[in-house]
Amino acid sequence: MGNVKANSPRLWAFLIATYWVSFVTYYLSWKAYKHVLGLRAAALKSPDVKVEQFAILVRDIPAVPEGKTRKEQVDSYFKGIYPDTFYRSMVVTDIKQVTKIWVELEGYKKKLARAEAIYEQSKTTASPEGKRPMNKTGFLGLVGKKVDSIEYYNEKINELIPKLEAEQKVTLREKQQASALVFFTSRVTAAAAGQSLHDQMVDSWTVIDAPEPRQIIWKNLLIKFYSREIRQYVVYILVALTIFFYMIPIGLISAVTTLKNLVKYLSFLKPIVEIVAVKTVLEAYLPQLALIIFLALLPKLLLFLSKAEGIPSESHAIRAASGKYFYFTILNVFIGVTVGGTLFSTFKTIEDKPKSIVSVLAKSLPSNATFFLTFVALKFFVGYGLELSRIVPLIIFHLKRKYLCKTETEVKEAWAPGDFGYVSRVPGDLLIITIVLCYSVIAPIILPFGVLYFGLGWLILRNQALKVYVPAYESNGRSWPHIHVRLIAALILYQVTMLGYFGVKEFKYTPFVIVLLILSLIFIFVCQKKFYRAFQTIPLEVASHELKESPNMEQIFRAYIPPSLSCEKDEDLFEDALSQVSRSASSV
Amino acid sequence: MGNVKANSPRLWAFLIATYWVSFVTYYLSWKAYKHVLGLRAAALKSPDVKVEQFAILVRDIPAVPEGKTRKEQVDSYFKGIYPDTFYRSMVVTDIKQVTKIWVELEGYKKKLARAEAIYEQSKTTASPEGKRPMNKTGFLGLVGKKVDSIEYYNEKINELIPKLEAEQKVTLREKQQASALVFFTSRVTAAAAGQSLHDQMVDSWTVIDAPEPRQIIWKNLLIKFYSREIRQYVVYILVALTIFFYMIPIGLISAVTTLKNLVKYLSFLKPIVEIVAVKTVLEAYLPQLALIIFLALLPKLLLFLSKAEGIPSESHAIRAASGKYFYFTILNVFIGVTVGGTLFSTFKTIEDKPKSIVSVLAKSLPSNATFFLTFVALKFFVGYGLELSRIVPLIIFHLKRKYLCKTETEVKEAWAPGDFGYVSRVPGDLLIITIVLCYSVIAPIILPFGVLYFGLGWLILRNQALKVYVPAYESNGRSWPHIHVRLIAALILYQVTMLGYFGVKEFKYTPFVIVLLILSLIFIFVCQKKFYRAFQTIPLEVASHELKESPNMEQIFRAYIPPSLSCEKDEDLFEDALSQVSRSASSV
Repeated sequence: MGNVKANSPRLWAFLIATYWVSFVTYYLSWKAYKHVLGLRAAALKSPDVKVEQFAILVRDIPAVPEGKTRKEQVDSYFKGIYPDTFYRSMVVTDIKQVTKIWVELEGYKKKLARAEAIYEQSKTTASPEGKRPMNKTGFLGLVGKKVDSIEYYNEKINELIPKLEAEQKVTLREKQQASALVFFTSRVTAAAAGQSLHDQMVDSWTVIDAPEPRQIIWKNLLIKFYSREIRQYVVYILVALTIFFYMIPIGLISAVTTLKNLVKYLSFLKPIVEIVAVKTVLEAYLPQLALIIFLALLPKLLLFLSKAEGIPSESHAIRAASGKYFYFTILNVFIGVTVGGTLFSTFKTIEDKPKSIVSVLAKSLPSNATFFLTFVALKFFVGYGLELSRIVPLIIFHLKRKYLCKTETEVKEAWAPGDFGYVSRVPGDLLIITIVLCYSVIAPIILPFGVLYFGLGWLILRNQALKVYVPAYESNGRSWPHIHVRLIAALILYQVTMLGYFGVKEFKYTPFVIVLLILSLIFIFVCQKKFYRAFQTIPLEVASHELKESPNMEQIFRAYIPPSLSCEKDEDLFEDALSQVSRSASSV
Repeated sequence: MGNVKANSPRLWAFLIATYWVSFVTYYLSWKAYKHVLGLRAAALKSPDVKVEQFAILVRDIPAVPEGKTRKEQVDSYFKGIYPDTFYRSMVVTDIKQVTKIWVELEGYKKKLARAEAIYEQSKTTASPEGKRPMNKTGFLGLVGKKVDSIEYYNEKINELIPKLEAEQKVTLREKQQASALVFFTSRVTAAAAGQSLHDQMVDSWTVIDAPEPRQIIWKNLLIKFYSREIRQYVVYILVALTIFFYMIPIGLISAVTTLKNLVKYLSFLKPIVEIVAVKTVLEAYLPQLALIIFLALLPKLLLFLSKAEGIPSESHAIRAASGKYFYFTILNVFIGVTVGGTLFSTFKTIEDKPKSIVSVLAKSLPSNATFFLTFVALKFFVGYGLELSRIVPLIIFHLKRKYLCKTETEVKEAWAPGDFGYVSRVPGDLLIITIVLCYSVIAPIILPFGVLYFGLGWLILRNQALKVYVPAYESNGRSWPHIHVRLIAALILYQVTMLGYFGVKEFKYTPFVIVLLILSLIFIFVCQKKFYRAFQTIPLEVASHELKESPNMEQIFRAYIPPSLSCEKDEDLFEDALSQVSRSASSV
């Protein structure tokens, strides 16, 4: 009992620190929420015309009634509801086939440009004729007949253009789906329509705000309501299985792919494996190879699974994948290391020398804290170093330019920095927050590292965001509520850790931590209630702000035509084909 | 083991019966859901002008900006968003004071009419002068100065009319609240507005569909967003406490109010209590008196609590109270009797004589089943008998007419049948469904009683609904989803009961009942997902149907003026006062 009493002031200090950390987190995250909401409002009410603010996406359109085309059905439905502001509709078509041809055509166009560039470059003063580039027509240009590249590609292009045009017409006429984009002449109407129930049956004529044209996942627009619902749950189950049991298949693969087996089945590798240096490296890394590959591919796998849910926009899919990755990270990296390691044994060490608390924390930091300290330090030294110098992309670019790129376009493509890669970046930062929070009281030396990480991060990533990366889409801050929930989840994890800590110490006032847990739950509930809907939809007041110029509706409509369906020489193909459908249908 | 095998076919039959009952319930309730939805759609898309379809209710309006009136603030906000369809707004005022005066005035008007009628009646041929009625001015007309009634009431009325008018002006000018009714010229706009988020901040400018004028609970419109949220949870906790622990205070009261105590403290009752007949009755019922009073007042208490949540419409409050009452009924009547009684002992009885199952069920129905059988039978013999004959209201009416009613209006009021009283009627019927479902397999004799109850109920209540009762409001079927959820909750209770039964029997295929439980949860989830939103809001397609005539907006606006604010002699008072506010504000 004496011991408990002696501990009391220190535990009290810890408890107060826990409260302090929690309240600072509430306060800052609340401010951040308000700030992001303000930014979102400013972006949404901007007087510039943004095409997605004039459109809605309609899915689950019921079967076409007798004697009507799909377009007529959609038009009459929305004209009936919005007689004044309805502009036009675009029926979504299954563009898989036409996109395939279009991609092939674009590939040949690129190859032609490349072949011409090579030919141009070969025209030196020594041989003004130059050397016409040749290629093989078979697999990867490795086998098959050898042909003149420029002639061959020209031929292919001339072959594909009429094929593409024919397929475009077929697509527009026959591959219409039960989805449509509907355009309005008013931002307010579009915003209100995106939030409103249109049909008695919730599973038909479902309406959402249109995503930006560049982030529409066209193939997901073909998926029906119930299919989407079921896919969602199947994906949740798959992800849960992946998070909890991913070690089982990886363990099995690791058990099989030993060096011995490798030599046994791939005997041609034997001479290489026999080299001592190679052997040492392989012996060290082969068991973990499957894990390393899995971890590298995981964000892509999660993004694939999120898209398989039937989500219609890229940004939403990335948000979903990022959220899933967070749970994986927390469960496997943080909790895995902590529970597998010795988080609670650190408490023991501190307890043994209660007076030398500072020196204990500073000198004999427990193995876990050290691990995570190294982790955070590595993240900001190596991670931000690589980020800032962009050394890897630079090397890749120079290699590409030297050996692969021949045309101007190819060089530009090689230089393009891409976007931020939120799928793994956001969970990565959230992991650091979790680590810093959880160790903040028992090993406060992690705090300066955390401050450094996020301080430097702010400076560096701000620069990268403004001057380097090119965003692939704009979601107007819609990922923030998801980040915020996970931030508070990290805080709750921290509070639970402290609860465990105080419990181990048999601290009399442990229930005070439960109060804090309840506060966190109330806080996240209030935040979601107060802010979430404004992130989900466009508030009408915001949408009602004046525009700089009256929108060019034709241009807005055209922005949503997928590239594989847009046609340079005949601008009116889209409309033509559609009216043709009307004509052919009405003549039947 | 032999016993188990011998039981098997019977248990299999029970299992199949359970499945059958469940699937019939799914099917019928699904059909009913669709049917109610169809009726709702038909009612909503009716070409008749319904005032509530042209209005929305706005609450949580932020503070009035400098130099503007509340009305200007609301008008400019909605004009900005709906430049074409905005008609007018009506700022909600705190009408508590003015309603008090108005009620007083109406009371005196009634009393005057009554006094005049009495005076008229007293003019017989014997005394053509008649006798002017007199009354005392004090408490309940029992004490105070005796005055001539007609003169006194006239005086009072003349006193109150200017007071009312003054108070009306004060109310309209100074008691404006942060709520408003906003009127649109289009049904579609009103329906879309009711579903849309208007302001960035979810807790300001909150918008819902306007309730019918007759069912607005004006005083609840004054309650702010967070207050409503907190009130809701406080009420939930209070109701949970009431449901689980109501026996404690009632037990205490019963313990105190014994016959002995009664005589002790109210000694003047002694001579009455000494009478043998009275004593017997009191001894029998006094212990339960508190319980009886509590049960009689419970629906009213729950309705009061539901209104205290801050719900703005009467029908919504009644739905909420009805839902709460259901849980009370199920927990205390059904589960209370069953667990306190011997539900599972019945299984034992059946097990002892497995072959004579029918006779066991028919003859030695266990005490519980008998109790509930009697309950159901009583409900339909006595309940429907009373319902159909309306003997109690008839007696009350005749008594009133004979001794109380003097004027035509009073007779009419005494005759008015009121409305259905959904608060207790719906949970009552749901209790019968629960009983019938739970005993359907193990004591199927309850089934004909159930069929009779609901068959007769359909005939009788259909008649009562069409020809007797006068609905106090129209919610267009919005209570059905709430009834449906509770219906499926009853089904789940039944399935759990069967799970317990099969568990007791150590039936090998008990898990099949778990499958059924999961099916029920999926069923209710799908139903809610598919139908609920269409009950919550008005689908735009439904609202876009043509009207018989273009709506008279002035009339729609006037329909929402509370009776205590409407003024016969000066029709424009409302508008006048409002413009006066604008004037006085702009002159400041």
